Amino acid sequence: MNALDLWIQETHQNAVALRFKVEKTLFSAKSPFQQVDVVQTAAHGGMLLNDGIIMVSERDEYIYHEMIAHVPVSVHPSPKRVLVIGGGDGGTVRELVKHRQVERIVMVEIDEMVINACRQHLPSISCALDDPRVELIIDDGVKYVASTGESFDIVLIDSTDPIGPAAPLFDRQFYENVAGLLSEQGIMISQAESPFYDFKIQSAMLENQRPFFKRLHLYTFTNLTYPGGLWSFGFGSKALCPLMDFDPDRMSAESVHTRYYSPDIHIASFMLPKFVKDNLSGVLDPLPPVSQLKTP
Amino acid sequence: MNALDLWIQETHQNAVALRFKVEKTLFSAKSPFQQVDVVQTAAHGGMLLNDGIIMVSERDEYIYHEMIAHVPVSVHPSPKRVLVIGGGDGGTVRELVKHRQVERIVMVEIDEMVINACRQHLPSISCALDDPRVELIIDDGVKYVASTGESFDIVLIDSTDPIGPAAPLFDRQFYENVAGLLSEQGIMISQAESPFYDFKIQSAMLENQRPFFKRLHLYTFTNLTYPGGLWSFGFGSKALCPLMDFDPDRMSAESVHTRYYSPDIHIASFMLPKFVKDNLSGVLDPLPPVSQLKTP
Repeated sequence: MNALDLWIQETHQNAVALRFKVEKTLFSAKSPFQQVDVVQTAAHGGMLLNDGIIMVSERDEYIYHEMIAHVPVSVHPSPKRVLVIGGGDGGTVRELVKHRQVERIVMVEIDEMVINACRQHLPSISCALDDPRVELIIDDGVKYVASTGESFDIVLIDSTDPIGPAAPLFDRQFYENVAGLLSEQGIMISQAESPFYDFKIQSAMLENQRPFFKRLHLYTFTNLTYPGGLWSFGFGSKALCPLMDFDPDRMSAESVHTRYYSPDIHIASFMLPKFVKDNLSGVLDPLPPVSQLKTP
Repeated sequence: MNALDLWIQETHQNAVALRFKVEKTLFSAKSPFQQVDVVQTAAHGGMLLNDGIIMVSERDEYIYHEMIAHVPVSVHPSPKRVLVIGGGDGGTVRELVKHRQVERIVMVEIDEMVINACRQHLPSISCALDDPRVELIIDDGVKYVASTGESFDIVLIDSTDPIGPAAPLFDRQFYENVAGLLSEQGIMISQAESPFYDFKIQSAMLENQRPFFKRLHLYTFTNLTYPGGLWSFGFGSKALCPLMDFDPDRMSAESVHTRYYSPDIHIASFMLPKFVKDNLSGVLDPLPPVSQLKTP
């Protein structure tokens, strides 16, 4: 008697695909915004998919979530108020609450079903959503940033690809509104796709951000569940340099435990492959040589 | 009329898989050592597979080949003689011949069919195999390092996984023999698998190398065609530190063109994800803080 040989597949540009062996389906339903599925995989633990696209897997989600959260928190001198747009799985919030300096986290997720599915089936990721510093708002992030009067030190755009409900999160007007919410030394981090397979999306996104930030950078992280291996975040800031203003002792001072992020990885992540640096030299700001940096 | 929807798939541990759409088969034959195939893919150009395992694709092979070659050449003060074990596709040699300082390259490949298939179907990779500084030897690399009397400044172990013909390239005796061939400041680089999916292979390999090198390090590169995203090379040396002895001006002084490698990437590649650094702290040597480094 053989068990069903079940696999899920994410296909990119009808030319490359990633597949994961599935043991069982944990959740499957259609929200007003998208199809939401959680499956148990053989090698990657629980996995969330929206409209069939892999969002997170328990095996490697810590890389993405540590890199979106600890990089800006380790640069901003006083990261008290953080806004998360998207991030329904809760992984970004889980990393943010590790910092005692963070006093308030507002998370604006458009799709309540994603939050509820992750609360029930991916508790290792969603475990901090009930932290008393967290305010959950079920709303469209685009509307929220256009209408809130609140100011934030850090805004994290924890979005999916620019198709479906996340598409307006890549628009110029959205970035202008985010920049308007940022405090004087504010930082915006945005999911910036793969430099290999999605260079056009990446460069268009950065061009849309450029007018509203004094400094604009890109940093990379590795990934096992998105096609393209190397993925990236945009770093837009009103004043701070991600390397010269980086506090390499912040994590140890606050006893924050990580598995991927470290002060070394912080610095390394801003050192871009030559073709990425060359392709984006017109839109990104230069960085100081490493010999000028503070290290732990 | 629909074209055949043909895909090749590499499955890892029966749990994750990478797939590439194939347009046609360019070469397919069985050598005395393995099945050798070259296919034309839809998005990754020509692709070489040995026993169904992806070796290289034209889309991203430059990353692997630049990182195996330019890292040691940029550290060694006088990299005149280089031995390549394996590397039948020719990509490693193509990067080495870009350096005028390299006077002699011996490449020992066990399977002549791989060389011939790549010469015919992957000329963008194999194009430098006829450089007058290159001597091709069709032989077992294990036997070669046990018997040659020649000394080398750099030895590159450009191997596949430790199964099939490449398995002995991960043995302690092999590394002892390689160390014996190295000149006083010699460096050995070895393909070291994925820290995510193949940690046991990686740590066993480094344990086997440890007794024969004064310094032992690991450095990483990103990859689109091997499962696991982040891949790595071992750096074993008899004297030199990959960061303190690194010459960041070597590449520009020799006008070497690259697409991935740069002095920044050289430094960044030795900054390991925290879990990798922690897991291997018993076998790897420490590195100096970046603030002590020379930069271009």
